[in-house]
Amino acid sequence: MQGLMMDYPLTLQHAFHRVTHLFPRKEIVTQTESEPHRYTYADWGRRVMQLAHALKKAGVGDGDRVATFAWNTYRHFELYYAVPCMGAVLHTLNIRLFADQLVYIVNDAADKVMFVDGDLVPIVEKLVDQLPTVQLYVIMGDAPYATGRLRPSIDYETFIADQPTTFTWPDLDENSAAAMCYTSGTTGNPKGVVYSHRSIFLHSMGVGHVEGMALSERDVVFPIVPMFHANAWGFPHAAAFSGSKVVLPGRFSDPLRVARVIEQERVTITAGVPTIWIGLLSLLEKERFDLSTLRAIAAGGSAAPQALIEGLQRHNIPIIHAWGMTETSPLASLSRLRSYQLDLSPDEQFRIRARQGTVIPGVEFRVVDMESGQEVPWDNQTFGELQVRGPWVARAYYKDTESASKFADGWLRTGDVAVVDDDGSIQLVDRTKDLVKSGGEWISSVELEGLIMGHPKVLEACVIGIPHAKWGERPLACVVPKPDALDQVSKEEILDYLRARVAKWWLPDDVVFIEAVPKTSVGKFDKKVLRTQYEMHSL
Amino acid sequence: MQGLMMDYPLTLQHAFHRVTHLFPRKEIVTQTESEPHRYTYADWGRRVMQLAHALKKAGVGDGDRVATFAWNTYRHFELYYAVPCMGAVLHTLNIRLFADQLVYIVNDAADKVMFVDGDLVPIVEKLVDQLPTVQLYVIMGDAPYATGRLRPSIDYETFIADQPTTFTWPDLDENSAAAMCYTSGTTGNPKGVVYSHRSIFLHSMGVGHVEGMALSERDVVFPIVPMFHANAWGFPHAAAFSGSKVVLPGRFSDPLRVARVIEQERVTITAGVPTIWIGLLSLLEKERFDLSTLRAIAAGGSAAPQALIEGLQRHNIPIIHAWGMTETSPLASLSRLRSYQLDLSPDEQFRIRARQGTVIPGVEFRVVDMESGQEVPWDNQTFGELQVRGPWVARAYYKDTESASKFADGWLRTGDVAVVDDDGSIQLVDRTKDLVKSGGEWISSVELEGLIMGHPKVLEACVIGIPHAKWGERPLACVVPKPDALDQVSKEEILDYLRARVAKWWLPDDVVFIEAVPKTSVGKFDKKVLRTQYEMHSL
Repeated sequence: MQGLMMDYPLTLQHAFHRVTHLFPRKEIVTQTESEPHRYTYADWGRRVMQLAHALKKAGVGDGDRVATFAWNTYRHFELYYAVPCMGAVLHTLNIRLFADQLVYIVNDAADKVMFVDGDLVPIVEKLVDQLPTVQLYVIMGDAPYATGRLRPSIDYETFIADQPTTFTWPDLDENSAAAMCYTSGTTGNPKGVVYSHRSIFLHSMGVGHVEGMALSERDVVFPIVPMFHANAWGFPHAAAFSGSKVVLPGRFSDPLRVARVIEQERVTITAGVPTIWIGLLSLLEKERFDLSTLRAIAAGGSAAPQALIEGLQRHNIPIIHAWGMTETSPLASLSRLRSYQLDLSPDEQFRIRARQGTVIPGVEFRVVDMESGQEVPWDNQTFGELQVRGPWVARAYYKDTESASKFADGWLRTGDVAVVDDDGSIQLVDRTKDLVKSGGEWISSVELEGLIMGHPKVLEACVIGIPHAKWGERPLACVVPKPDALDQVSKEEILDYLRARVAKWWLPDDVVFIEAVPKTSVGKFDKKVLRTQYEMHSL
Repeated sequence: MQGLMMDYPLTLQHAFHRVTHLFPRKEIVTQTESEPHRYTYADWGRRVMQLAHALKKAGVGDGDRVATFAWNTYRHFELYYAVPCMGAVLHTLNIRLFADQLVYIVNDAADKVMFVDGDLVPIVEKLVDQLPTVQLYVIMGDAPYATGRLRPSIDYETFIADQPTTFTWPDLDENSAAAMCYTSGTTGNPKGVVYSHRSIFLHSMGVGHVEGMALSERDVVFPIVPMFHANAWGFPHAAAFSGSKVVLPGRFSDPLRVARVIEQERVTITAGVPTIWIGLLSLLEKERFDLSTLRAIAAGGSAAPQALIEGLQRHNIPIIHAWGMTETSPLASLSRLRSYQLDLSPDEQFRIRARQGTVIPGVEFRVVDMESGQEVPWDNQTFGELQVRGPWVARAYYKDTESASKFADGWLRTGDVAVVDDDGSIQLVDRTKDLVKSGGEWISSVELEGLIMGHPKVLEACVIGIPHAKWGERPLACVVPKPDALDQVSKEEILDYLRARVAKWWLPDDVVFIEAVPKTSVGKFDKKVLRTQYEMHSL
């Protein structure tokens, strides 16, 4: 027996209509070199529709990919809605990718039009000969260093000028593609995640859910996380569902600017990777700002150290520690104290808040033993791979034939290793490929690294597994001393430091000192480089 | 181009899995004659699965209708999940319906099993010969006045005892029917609204959205609105998505019990029709209770008088005024102050909060001129019919062939007449069929009634349109004097009172005094009885 409810498609057209009709006077503010750019959702809506007309005129049709190479600005936000609402697919390019990855991605997606922020034009100019699918470049704002190699090109304002300010959106299937974003793993080519209208709609309901980020009309949201990074964690979309005022950083994310913007625009919620908040915390220790409007900082991308959570709490700024990945839209879980945890000691509360926490409504998870495939007990000790599923989780990569095993049985294998406590709260301990397997037992490289980096003479540390005749694998610690401790720290010092803190069999078999930890294009430790280098290292 | 996200069906199985795994220790409390009944979601989950087994064993299969005739209790809450999660359809019967309506509804739905609260058995016993589709009655709790006419019947606890406490749910299509609820209009037979898993899932996300009811894990929710009345406004479903503690009133909704329960269980949000809150307010004026945990009372079903909103505000209890109907799952709009309304005067704020407010994310509305079919301007003056659409709005009634016009063009014609302000906030002014059309202009019967009921000598007033040779229709006021003002109030007194308050052409052409306003089975004014009676009344 079927239900008799409307077949109302879940699309971004709903959010666009909602915010332009119900919240037309709310503001969108973008940081610039000089005064911030300000306008309302009413203005934004008219320009979104002008942009849709211009795209249509330029030959962009149903399902065509439109790329952006841009900072978080109002024009990028216009593209966020114009492109999907007219039936095309917004492809946000990571401006920090290596050139060869960028070329690969644009060609893989076969982007037809590319929108480029003026100051980023020189980067794209270097690649232009390798981007045959791109038929038009639209330049956003001044491009002082442009040499004119992007051809044909047009200025954004010229592109949309004189277009009608109303557009009749086409009927869309809720499962049609709305946006895409590539993940750059440490192996192989980047893979495209293709979001549907339905998945973005539902993810936005999750971000607006009170057990999600609770994004409301009264919020002033300041997403510092880039709009090319998993849709800025969904904040720009969710803001339109809720009618929130949006503040965009442009290309400015230094701590001083961040603090001033929060103060001046009365920001209530902001979002970004821990690095930004470490910088902000350090600024707040020196200088005073009135950040009292801030109800939450959403931190994700990598684990927020407990010291950061505690440090910001001293300034009455609560961090919401969140977890997700490009493949999960990205919000999948977050950590917030539950009703029955409000009376715990501050220490216990910080430990709970530093976890990756509880999956939000709409997301399901399991943690599975990497060999038996059985779910591990929720004892907060037993390691397993975190797997998730839900309406905003990817089921495949674009044009990909190699990764089927990652999506087998309807679950996404995240590649993250986690433990679960008896509340079902998740804590990540490592990446599956970085775990060290010694004598049939797992050792968390991330935990060892965190401990070693707590040593006063250590700047960075990277732990990898090295083949071992008897145990299968044993950990090797690659340590970068602080500049002022060069040649003043010994292997024994590191091991002594660890001895007090880990089980004996977790102790690395050797410590080598290196100049720097190799990094991937998105700044994560590139362990495969070290693994190749030390493959034959004798333990 | 299609998105590449998981085809994860939106079903209640998600909520069931979520709440039993992530919030097993949270409580469900039910009021009884003596001590409240308490258990956890873990207990509840085991019994839900036992119930599913018992139903299956009793021959309940895919799409079969399972009826309930019950108060708000933990057993009813168990049925809320067991029935839909196993693929059957929960049909909640309004225990206050007239006998002939009840018989019609059970036969129309062809209910196979009926669950009856013990104290309600005598009502069903009277009808049992007319309910041929019902193959089994399950009696919940003691039934001291039962005569044994319900056959075959079994006690609920016996029914589920010895069943396994785990159940492997079948794969369900998200559009399959999960629940049904009949609306009793004032004309014709009741009509069945059939909710799908998808619609209940999405509605729950709306109720949990911070711009909806913001129902969270930290909430203690106390739905007084009956579970047979549009799923208790979705609170029991949304509670499972959020992991909220649930407090159920059983058959007790008198003000004293309500106040004590709020105080003892530390209720944070409760929900019900204004009548209940008028009673509570009157109690609070006499007696002290600590209701400080209460963050909101959700009021709907009929308009909450501004005096009620102000009165409760004096006790620091904010009312959230909400609007919806059985056909809209029901939550469609609610009124909450926006960021830029927080500095308005208390008077202006109360006026805003007394409106039906803003549609929540997921719901779209328009207000349409009843003759031209064009949208009316948002000037807060021009009347039109409120129409809504969205994924939790009905597209048809069960087995119905007469009401197609109500759902034409993909919009539900609500039959409510509204004005809209420039924020898109809705205010209802009447029902379309109750408006009086005089000389081509509309007069709101509801507004006149509200004014007349403000007269100190008036208990109730009902305004209807009477045929008029020159103007087409003119208003007639049917007035019930207060017991102590019988025969002491005159037509002229009423008209004089109105003269100062409405435009001259709104003044009723006549006032008649009656003993009582006829009511429908759900307690609304039954204007068609008065219309028939006064059809020939000469004005």
